[in-house]
Amino acid sequence: MARSARPVLSSLGPVALDRDGAEPLHRQLYRALRQAVLDGRLRPGERLPPSRALATEWALSRNTVVTTYDTLLAEGYVTGRVGAGTFVAASLPDAAPGGAAGRDEARRGVGLSARGRALAEAPSIARDRVGRPFALGTPDLEAFPFALWAQLIGRCWRHGGRALATEPDPLGYGPLRAEIAAYLRAVRAVRCEPEQVVIVSGAQQGLALMAQLLLDPGDAAWVEEPGWPGNRAALLGAGARLVPVPVDGEGIDVAAGMARGADARLALVTPSHQFPLGVTMSLARRLRLLDWAAARDAWIVEDDYDSEFRYAGPPLAALQGLDGAGRVIYVGSFSKVMFPALRLGYVVVPPDLVEPVRAARRHFDGGTSVVPQAALHRFLADGHFASHLRAMRSLYAAKRTAILASIETAFAGFATAEAGEAGMHVLLRLPPDCPDHVLAGRAARIGLTTPCLSGYYRADAETADAVTGNGFLLGFAAHDPAALDRAVRDLARLAVDMPNG
Amino acid sequence: MARSARPVLSSLGPVALDRDGAEPLHRQLYRALRQAVLDGRLRPGERLPPSRALATEWALSRNTVVTTYDTLLAEGYVTGRVGAGTFVAASLPDAAPGGAAGRDEARRGVGLSARGRALAEAPSIARDRVGRPFALGTPDLEAFPFALWAQLIGRCWRHGGRALATEPDPLGYGPLRAEIAAYLRAVRAVRCEPEQVVIVSGAQQGLALMAQLLLDPGDAAWVEEPGWPGNRAALLGAGARLVPVPVDGEGIDVAAGMARGADARLALVTPSHQFPLGVTMSLARRLRLLDWAAARDAWIVEDDYDSEFRYAGPPLAALQGLDGAGRVIYVGSFSKVMFPALRLGYVVVPPDLVEPVRAARRHFDGGTSVVPQAALHRFLADGHFASHLRAMRSLYAAKRTAILASIETAFAGFATAEAGEAGMHVLLRLPPDCPDHVLAGRAARIGLTTPCLSGYYRADAETADAVTGNGFLLGFAAHDPAALDRAVRDLARLAVDMPNG
Repeated sequence: MARSARPVLSSLGPVALDRDGAEPLHRQLYRALRQAVLDGRLRPGERLPPSRALATEWALSRNTVVTTYDTLLAEGYVTGRVGAGTFVAASLPDAAPGGAAGRDEARRGVGLSARGRALAEAPSIARDRVGRPFALGTPDLEAFPFALWAQLIGRCWRHGGRALATEPDPLGYGPLRAEIAAYLRAVRAVRCEPEQVVIVSGAQQGLALMAQLLLDPGDAAWVEEPGWPGNRAALLGAGARLVPVPVDGEGIDVAAGMARGADARLALVTPSHQFPLGVTMSLARRLRLLDWAAARDAWIVEDDYDSEFRYAGPPLAALQGLDGAGRVIYVGSFSKVMFPALRLGYVVVPPDLVEPVRAARRHFDGGTSVVPQAALHRFLADGHFASHLRAMRSLYAAKRTAILASIETAFAGFATAEAGEAGMHVLLRLPPDCPDHVLAGRAARIGLTTPCLSGYYRADAETADAVTGNGFLLGFAAHDPAALDRAVRDLARLAVDMPNG
Repeated sequence: MARSARPVLSSLGPVALDRDGAEPLHRQLYRALRQAVLDGRLRPGERLPPSRALATEWALSRNTVVTTYDTLLAEGYVTGRVGAGTFVAASLPDAAPGGAAGRDEARRGVGLSARGRALAEAPSIARDRVGRPFALGTPDLEAFPFALWAQLIGRCWRHGGRALATEPDPLGYGPLRAEIAAYLRAVRAVRCEPEQVVIVSGAQQGLALMAQLLLDPGDAAWVEEPGWPGNRAALLGAGARLVPVPVDGEGIDVAAGMARGADARLALVTPSHQFPLGVTMSLARRLRLLDWAAARDAWIVEDDYDSEFRYAGPPLAALQGLDGAGRVIYVGSFSKVMFPALRLGYVVVPPDLVEPVRAARRHFDGGTSVVPQAALHRFLADGHFASHLRAMRSLYAAKRTAILASIETAFAGFATAEAGEAGMHVLLRLPPDCPDHVLAGRAARIGLTTPCLSGYYRADAETADAVTGNGFLLGFAAHDPAALDRAVRDLARLAVDMPNG
């Protein structure tokens, strides 16, 4: 591959760049530097040379080096601010989607199992910092009634502490399971009895638990392409072979899934509000997916991650409610309506799976603490959940309107937003000459978090050359309209400068 | 095998009993009936024939049938009370230690993965019912300061709720990790920094998490023989091959371990207070185990499940504190000092494992809810934990003295108790003509929970014929001395009647 290998940074050793190859030089340089960070040749805190100096030394355009640095910055491998230089990050980021092979060597010495290495290296969820926009999936905590919460939680334990404290059911606190079943039946048309509701420590545990229970290493599983890395990681942690299935305007393309992996044991989907594209799965597609699962005895995991926030039209019925064959597992979370550190979610399983889940749960963790469950139960049972949800829905609707207006003004003629009718983020589509990962690097330098649409593609190596989208997912729920407007305008300025930057 | 097969219960179909075989008839009958329950030929709620009728019909001694029914009753496959008949249980028990092969068929139809079936079938922890004695590992909840707890937990959220609510660290709430590190350094001579402390949803999650991270399917792992089924289940859930290693007066027999499985990747041990025998691992044995692990790059998981309750002598130092090679993972729980439904424990990992654990944790569940963590942090930081522990230690010491005195009186000349100097149970050794599983069945009919020592043997099928102990583990912490005394005397009456029963 190497046509012209030349030594670069003294600590790096020789790096091969293929100047006539198909892969752009900035991608080659990116891979080489990232590998050096991952295997420790570039040490934490070490300063990278200024882009101009490196460009001269290596006979590259400065733009190539800047683009490379920006990508490394956006993914957290290096840190730096305008004018202050670029440094290897003190702690490595979670492996970025689609590119973590290099960590293998660094970890092998520790003595992990192969599964442990896969877990440590699986694509993970970027840690959004709440602060400046546009953190994803983060609620507005200023609007949460903490004083009320404090009162309820104290009351739970003052009266009836002893009953709460005894040996718990690994499936969850009974009264909370009953409240959730009633809520899901009424609002989401989920068909379930309280016994089918399993309380988990966040939706992520629900996904991981079901993957462990239903998939063996090597089993194929459909994942939406593009999709949420945390969902894929839950399946990878169970050793699944991911089959990326494209999403179109009707949701996951079931025919494509059957063509690519008819033998799949499971399909993990987001029918209400596809992540990240925002599509709602059509009824025809839903029925087709259910038919496939029933015919194949395959499982469908319905991740209903943010369906509480719907701003127009009636609430959507869950896919689970259409299932006559008991193949759908419905997963939801309280992190977005309540607060992230609550770590409570739920899984609704077909009746046949209740006892296997109980057994598996006993082995994995024995169940979730009753402390948050009892408090949440009171919050639901006393009607506070419903009124908090109503308040947040109208607060977020206003923020959504505001960010859409800001985008229309600031990005006029350059980029457009797709908002769907639900959720806590909008999708800003960027033009091709403004690659999202490059612009994200520049945005990071001014403190903006701009999750890249392209980063949610490429579920596995096989599809590394597949088509990807180009844009940002801009979370709006945690920020006030003025802050959103400022951030949108700052971002637009960076974007407009990009093609010539 | 069948010398004389004859049809029995109409719904059972033909059952083969080998009347000249080595296996006692009551064991053969037990296996046949259990299998019929597991695969649904005997349905939940169905009544079994009276023992006298069945004995006549099958030409068995009535004692054989009674013994069989008692064993099924003790393991939860059937329910019944003296005089009211015997019925198939409405819900199946967790698979009893060492004998769950029959569930396989029942579960296969559901569509679980092979791993899912293994999880559903792995030996698990019997659910002790708190009520009449002698529940294991259950603290005295009457003595827990719930009013204080209610006050602390409310205070956490009234002041600083917003800071608690934001995106959590999957490794746990920082201030709690720091408190635990300080406590373990001071009291258990554990060598650790707060960064090495990982908060988990109970010790069971700590064990399962480490097993997933460190073991691949088929990897060998040493387990103590006898030992705790939940520990084994955590390893089985990761696909490990269990190597049962005998325990003698100095703890796990390291030489025997090396002879049986020198290639093991991990040893799971209870050095402070071996479960269930109560032995403390000798220093020589500790050093030998550490040498083995260092030489082999194997891991040692130290399960320190009840070391807080030590009634004589200075606190024991943890094995972890002797480890110079970074091979020991230390696991502890708050369920026994606080209350079971709290579901909080901790794992202290070597520094190299911190980041892999964080990554694995993100995929499995994203961390434990901050709600119980923040409350426990205040309980520790304000000194309530230390004073509650002191109070419980002296309360349990008095109960331990009382139960030992009751046993000495009631079982004089028949059976003796081994108490060690620690823990929340005593070990009652029974004479050979009084098999623990048979007596447990009779005890269950009068409402007593008497976990059988023999049930903690036979970690896997290979050792099905190995030597087993015969006795009961009698938990005393949750009951007052008068109730313990009554229960001990009731049990002694059943035991003395046994050989002629």
